[in-house]
Amino acid sequence: MRIVVIGGDAAGMSAAAEARRVLPDDEIVVLERGRDVSYAACGLPYWIGGEVAGEDALVAHDAGYFRDRRGIDVRLGAEVTAIDPERRAVRLVGGESLSYDALVVATGARPRRPAIAGVDQPGVFTLRDLESARAIQRHLGGRPAATALVVGGGPIGTEMAEALCARGVAVTLIERADRPLPALDREVAAGAVAALASGCIAVHCGAPLERITPAAGGRLRASTADVTETFDMVVLGTGVQPNSELAAAAGCALGSSGAIAVDRTGRTSVSGIWAAGDCATAWHRLLGRPVWFPLATTANVQGRVAGRAIAGAPARFAGILGSWVSQSFGVGFGATGLDAAAARAAGRDPAAITRTGHDRSGYLPDTGEVAVHLVWDERDGRLLGGQVVGAGRIAPRLQVLATALAGGLTVRELAEADFPYVPPQAPLRDPIELAAAAAIGDAP
Amino acid sequence: MRIVVIGGDAAGMSAAAEARRVLPDDEIVVLERGRDVSYAACGLPYWIGGEVAGEDALVAHDAGYFRDRRGIDVRLGAEVTAIDPERRAVRLVGGESLSYDALVVATGARPRRPAIAGVDQPGVFTLRDLESARAIQRHLGGRPAATALVVGGGPIGTEMAEALCARGVAVTLIERADRPLPALDREVAAGAVAALASGCIAVHCGAPLERITPAAGGRLRASTADVTETFDMVVLGTGVQPNSELAAAAGCALGSSGAIAVDRTGRTSVSGIWAAGDCATAWHRLLGRPVWFPLATTANVQGRVAGRAIAGAPARFAGILGSWVSQSFGVGFGATGLDAAAARAAGRDPAAITRTGHDRSGYLPDTGEVAVHLVWDERDGRLLGGQVVGAGRIAPRLQVLATALAGGLTVRELAEADFPYVPPQAPLRDPIELAAAAAIGDAP
Repeated sequence: MRIVVIGGDAAGMSAAAEARRVLPDDEIVVLERGRDVSYAACGLPYWIGGEVAGEDALVAHDAGYFRDRRGIDVRLGAEVTAIDPERRAVRLVGGESLSYDALVVATGARPRRPAIAGVDQPGVFTLRDLESARAIQRHLGGRPAATALVVGGGPIGTEMAEALCARGVAVTLIERADRPLPALDREVAAGAVAALASGCIAVHCGAPLERITPAAGGRLRASTADVTETFDMVVLGTGVQPNSELAAAAGCALGSSGAIAVDRTGRTSVSGIWAAGDCATAWHRLLGRPVWFPLATTANVQGRVAGRAIAGAPARFAGILGSWVSQSFGVGFGATGLDAAAARAAGRDPAAITRTGHDRSGYLPDTGEVAVHLVWDERDGRLLGGQVVGAGRIAPRLQVLATALAGGLTVRELAEADFPYVPPQAPLRDPIELAAAAAIGDAP
Repeated sequence: MRIVVIGGDAAGMSAAAEARRVLPDDEIVVLERGRDVSYAACGLPYWIGGEVAGEDALVAHDAGYFRDRRGIDVRLGAEVTAIDPERRAVRLVGGESLSYDALVVATGARPRRPAIAGVDQPGVFTLRDLESARAIQRHLGGRPAATALVVGGGPIGTEMAEALCARGVAVTLIERADRPLPALDREVAAGAVAALASGCIAVHCGAPLERITPAAGGRLRASTADVTETFDMVVLGTGVQPNSELAAAAGCALGSSGAIAVDRTGRTSVSGIWAAGDCATAWHRLLGRPVWFPLATTANVQGRVAGRAIAGAPARFAGILGSWVSQSFGVGFGATGLDAAAARAAGRDPAAITRTGHDRSGYLPDTGEVAVHLVWDERDGRLLGGQVVGAGRIAPRLQVLATALAGGLTVRELAEADFPYVPPQAPLRDPIELAAAAAIGDAP
């Protein structure tokens, strides 16, 4: 059979590679409208910031590798204009048509631009794919920017703010909510917000961007209700939206946030069409329903599941927990599971607590502090979610909480989990243990 | 009532403090034969190595704090010579007698010295308590040692080897097994063994120490079957044995390895007597029976459980998983749960796998490698244990495995746990996820 994949990044290449593993001899074609496949989009801020030396480092495998080593027919510059589900064929720019037995739509997501005046003019950038990062690099390389406005105080905004700082740019970050990182609980986020506000970033919250107008010398004047300032460049970190139009036009039902509705094998509502990654919904195992929560981790797994399912092997997406992590200026922050508001909306009876502790024995030099926020159900004690903020590498502690969620542990089971201890590696009582013990009313 | 506690470190002071929390007004007496209470014994190698500035930093709270702030009558230099369970009284050196309503035996453990000639002479040290660390400090401070022999390639031996290296001492480490860290799987331990063998340590394995004889200038000549060498000092890291004689003489039944047998509230076989910490057995929740596995974490929790139980509050020790961690020369290593041999001995049907992966995105500078060894039951897929070795802070990854064990997760559930990702904090696929995916036969 012939498997056709639209889109050559995380979900698409994972689907193609996984189908190839199961089916050594079938035809697999990947149609990528750009010139890049299989690159680490999440690594782009670190290329812009200079920590990653060149864009090649971000490319896991290029098109030649997939063609020559995996027998996958990767076609670059191949843009699909329509899917014909009756004839099981896709039409390409230029008019060529390509039939499929199974189709994977992995068209990803695109930046959402605020509906304000001037948002499309030169000097206004988004960061989404390698091409958009190259545009920022060209701008920074051409006439070095002294000042930049970053719009949006979520992970993309804060990562870009740090990257531009590292390039010597004075950054102003604006967030329309009353604080940066509004997805995090206010108390636990305090350390990360403080880190942002230090250094070369000016943070303004509580007022959305209202317009961008050209200023002298190719600069841009940006205004909120409060303030008007002139910058050398503007970067939008104001979220994304799913590229679901192609699938919708083919009759695929859409789900949460306009993403392509898929079941737990990636199957859409149209026979012969699968979807995976940022363009598709994902099963949320704590909510027990599909949501749209576009992340590279999900795209990677959904792609593999779809590739396996199409190839006839057993496959089912276990579902997401909503785990994410980021860092700014040496402080890591992230979450997994539900926050108290989401838990309440889902009919749970949430309680929440925040505790701060050392990340190793406090008498050693350079010991950091880690804040842990836990949300659990008062009815059965089960953990519902958690957030972690602290200096250094906090992602593994979010893994602990994700593991507890995956296993349905109660906060008591988490408090009693018997964590290992040695002064330079871990404290006698981990901040997670302290928070979980507090949740069950145990001794501090 | 009057609660009497014998021993003033981790288990004893935890028991006293927890009983005080529940019972604000009852009399609580702690009898400590030494002059120190509530210090971090696990921190001693870092004081000797110079990372911790002074011994005061290792003392969480001194006797004065417990007396003045917690109303706990801590008596230093108070050595108990006998327990009279009929009269509910303890006898002290000097003849004084003190009655109790409830007694907590928290007498800890002492170094086990190999039964060889010359092991008790001056210049041969062990590391167990503050006093023994002071003796090593005096020795190093008096006439700086140029060379030292460390006997035993477990965590205490390797931590002491590193500490002495940091003081400029050339260290020879001997281990009678065929490699250092014999408690770890050979493959996963390789990175830690390599770190040990680098730097200022010469490692000799496969032959036990046979004798120590005095040499010229206060030095010591040590011999194995293979080699005889002369050193300025010898440090024994050859394990510990429980201080259970006092309780045994009072009629308390002994359990595993001669430790005081206790139930899950810390109760011994003798009415009115509890025991906790390194002198006592501990419930192993994977084996479903008490074992002797002396660790500060266990002592801390067992002490709190006993204190609470004596005070009449609900308390039950959840049990250990056998979690431990250590590090040498920047490489962390540790384990939780059962290894394949222990699992087989316990009637399980273990399978095991080792995988190595990046600890964050590989294209960033200074990204480390982490090796993860998983043991699971082939019959139901449940995780039975795990080991982690890698540069930097690997303890939180052991916490992930301990959490999975505490929740009874299968390797599939672990592989599908939805870990968060961002390049500078965590890789797209964590080494734990890679190992768990390999365990279920998933794609690499």
